[in-house]
Amino acid sequence: MKATVFYAPGDLRVEAVPDPVITEPTDAIVRVTHACICGSDLWFYRGLTPYQPGWRIGHEWMGIVEEIGPQVHTIKKGDRVIAPFTFSDGDCEYCRKGLQTSCIHGGLWGMLNDGGQGEMVRAPFADSTLVTLPSRIENDSAMLRAILPLTDVMGTGHHAAVSADVRKGGTVAIVGDGAVGLCGVQAVRRLGAERIIVLGHQSRRMELARRFGATDLITSRGDEAIGQVIEMTKGGAEAVLECVGTSDSLNSAIGICRPGCKVGYVGVPHHSTGINFRIMFLRNVSLHGGMAPVRAYIPELVADVLAGRLDPSPVLDLTVDLDGVPEGYRAMDTRKAIKVMVQL
Amino acid sequence: MKATVFYAPGDLRVEAVPDPVITEPTDAIVRVTHACICGSDLWFYRGLTPYQPGWRIGHEWMGIVEEIGPQVHTIKKGDRVIAPFTFSDGDCEYCRKGLQTSCIHGGLWGMLNDGGQGEMVRAPFADSTLVTLPSRIENDSAMLRAILPLTDVMGTGHHAAVSADVRKGGTVAIVGDGAVGLCGVQAVRRLGAERIIVLGHQSRRMELARRFGATDLITSRGDEAIGQVIEMTKGGAEAVLECVGTSDSLNSAIGICRPGCKVGYVGVPHHSTGINFRIMFLRNVSLHGGMAPVRAYIPELVADVLAGRLDPSPVLDLTVDLDGVPEGYRAMDTRKAIKVMVQL
Repeated sequence: MKATVFYAPGDLRVEAVPDPVITEPTDAIVRVTHACICGSDLWFYRGLTPYQPGWRIGHEWMGIVEEIGPQVHTIKKGDRVIAPFTFSDGDCEYCRKGLQTSCIHGGLWGMLNDGGQGEMVRAPFADSTLVTLPSRIENDSAMLRAILPLTDVMGTGHHAAVSADVRKGGTVAIVGDGAVGLCGVQAVRRLGAERIIVLGHQSRRMELARRFGATDLITSRGDEAIGQVIEMTKGGAEAVLECVGTSDSLNSAIGICRPGCKVGYVGVPHHSTGINFRIMFLRNVSLHGGMAPVRAYIPELVADVLAGRLDPSPVLDLTVDLDGVPEGYRAMDTRKAIKVMVQL
Repeated sequence: MKATVFYAPGDLRVEAVPDPVITEPTDAIVRVTHACICGSDLWFYRGLTPYQPGWRIGHEWMGIVEEIGPQVHTIKKGDRVIAPFTFSDGDCEYCRKGLQTSCIHGGLWGMLNDGGQGEMVRAPFADSTLVTLPSRIENDSAMLRAILPLTDVMGTGHHAAVSADVRKGGTVAIVGDGAVGLCGVQAVRRLGAERIIVLGHQSRRMELARRFGATDLITSRGDEAIGQVIEMTKGGAEAVLECVGTSDSLNSAIGICRPGCKVGYVGVPHHSTGINFRIMFLRNVSLHGGMAPVRAYIPELVADVLAGRLDPSPVLDLTVDLDGVPEGYRAMDTRKAIKVMVQL
C-alpha cells in the first residue's frame, strides 16, 4: 500500500510501505477512505517537536473494515467505521472512566503504528477503538464529511466545552480561531451558551466563527484583548476554552476569566514561559481538560450529526488526494487552508 | 490601642495607633482576643512580596464585639465572633456563589485596614463577614484554640480538599507540611480519604501529619518523591492538595497525579518558572482552587469542632502575647514554630 512517511521537517513523502496484517486477535484492518491533516501535525512538520524519520503520519481517519481478527466481535468486515485519534482497550481503569486517551494499552496513530494518511491501518482493540456508522450514509459524501472532524477536532472542542463546564445561557469565550476553536464554537452553542466571544486574528476563520454562532469577535491581542473581554462581560467570561496551547493564549484565557471561571484547555501545550498563576489564584480560576478522550464523545456527537443538528465540516476547506498530502501540509503551514481533508 | 505595624522586612513593631471607629453603618468594632501569624505573612516579612511601611498586619483573628453600626442586625455587642481572612458584603454575585474572596466590595485585613495582630478591628459588613460562636464556649480555652485555625489555614486546607474532589475511600496526596498542609490532612480525613500521603521535609511537622491521619510520609524531593508516590499508588494519587505555592511544589503535585486527577491548589503562588503543562495535558490533570473562600466553610467546620470531630489546634505550637508578635515572626521565620497564636 501507499502511506505518508516522515523524512524530515518539511519533507513528507507518499510511498510504498508493507500492507498491514492482523498481529493481535483483537485487530482489524481498515481501508482508509477519508483522513485529515491536524494542526498538531504542523508542530513536527515545522521541526518544533521531535519526530523520527520513517515514522508514519495521520491520526484522524475513517474507512471500511477489510479484515478482522478472531477476537473481534462487534466490528464486521465491510463496516463503515470512524476512529478517534487514539486506540484504546476499552477495559482498563481509564477507559472505564471515559478517559481513553490514558488507556494503559493504548496509543496514537502514526509514529510506529499505521497512520491515517495512508491507504490502510491496522486498528488494535477494534471493538473498543472503532465506532460503526450506519450503512445508509455510505453514499452521502456531505454526511461523511460532517462526521470526519469527530475523529479529533470536534471532539476536542467538545472536551474543552465540557471541561469548562459550559452551561445553558452562559457567556463563553474561546481563545483560538483554528479548527479546534471553531469546533469549540459549535460545541458551546450545542451546550446552550448564549454569548460566544471568539479571540482570533484570521479574518476568514473569524467569519466562519460568526457563521458557527459566535456573537462577538475580538481580533486584538494580549492585554488589549483581555481588557475588551473584561469590559464587554462586566468582569470576565463565565467559561473559557483555550484552543491554541501557547503561553500567550493560556494567559489570555486566564486573563479573561470571571472569578470562579473554568478554563477548558485543549491546545497541545507549547509553553515556553510561565503562566499567570497569581491571577488564577486570586480569582479561583480552574484549568480543566487536556488531551481529549474523543472516543467517549463520538457516539453522542455522531448522533447529532446524523440528526442534522451538528455540522463541523466547513472547517475542512481544502481537499487533496493521498498524493496531495505534502501539498496539504504546505497549505496549512502557510495558513492557506484551515484544515485539509485527504480523500482516498 | 496597640497594634502591629510594618516598618520594613524583619522590622515589625507593636505600637500605639488610633482606636478604630464605626465609619459605615454596617461596621462593627471587635476587641481581638486571639490572632495568628500566617505562613503567608512571612513573604512580606522576608521582603519577598511588597508591603508598605505603616501598614497593619494580621488576617487571622477572633474576638468580642464592642460596638455595632446602626445597620448591623444579626451581630450584637458582646458576641464572640470569628472572622475569615477577608471581609465581604454577602450580597454580590460572588458572595452569593460562596466565593467571598472575590467580593466586589471586600478586602483583606491588614494593610490599610485594621489587622488582627492588634487590640481592635473595625469589621466592615459585620453581619456577612463575622460568624457568631455560642457563648457557652467562652471559658473553654481549648475549644477557642481549636476554632481559631478556621480563620484561614483550616478553611484553606478544606478548600484544597474540596477543590481536589476528595472522595470517601480515595487515595490522596498532600504536598506541603506547613500549617495548611497539616490542616489539609485533617480535611481529607474528614471527607473520608482512606490513604493519605504527605510530602514534606520537617520531621516535627511530619509527625503531626501522622498524628492527624497521614498513612504515608514522603521526605524525598523532586523526581525521587514523584517516583515514590507513582510507585506506591500504582500510577498516581486520585486527588492531590498543593499547599506550598512554589513551582517545585506545584510540579510535584502535577507529577504525582493519576490520569484525570484534580490538584486542589491553595498555596499562595510564588512561581518563578513554568509549570509542567505537558504532563498535565497528557494525563488530563486539572488545577482547581485558589484563595480559599473561608467564610463559606466556617459554619460547617465550626459545627464539627464544637461536636469534637475536628481539632486543628495542634498546628498552633507557640503562643505569644501582643508584645511578643515580633518574636513570633522570628520563630516562624526560623521554623522554630509551625504556627504562632497571639493571645491578647
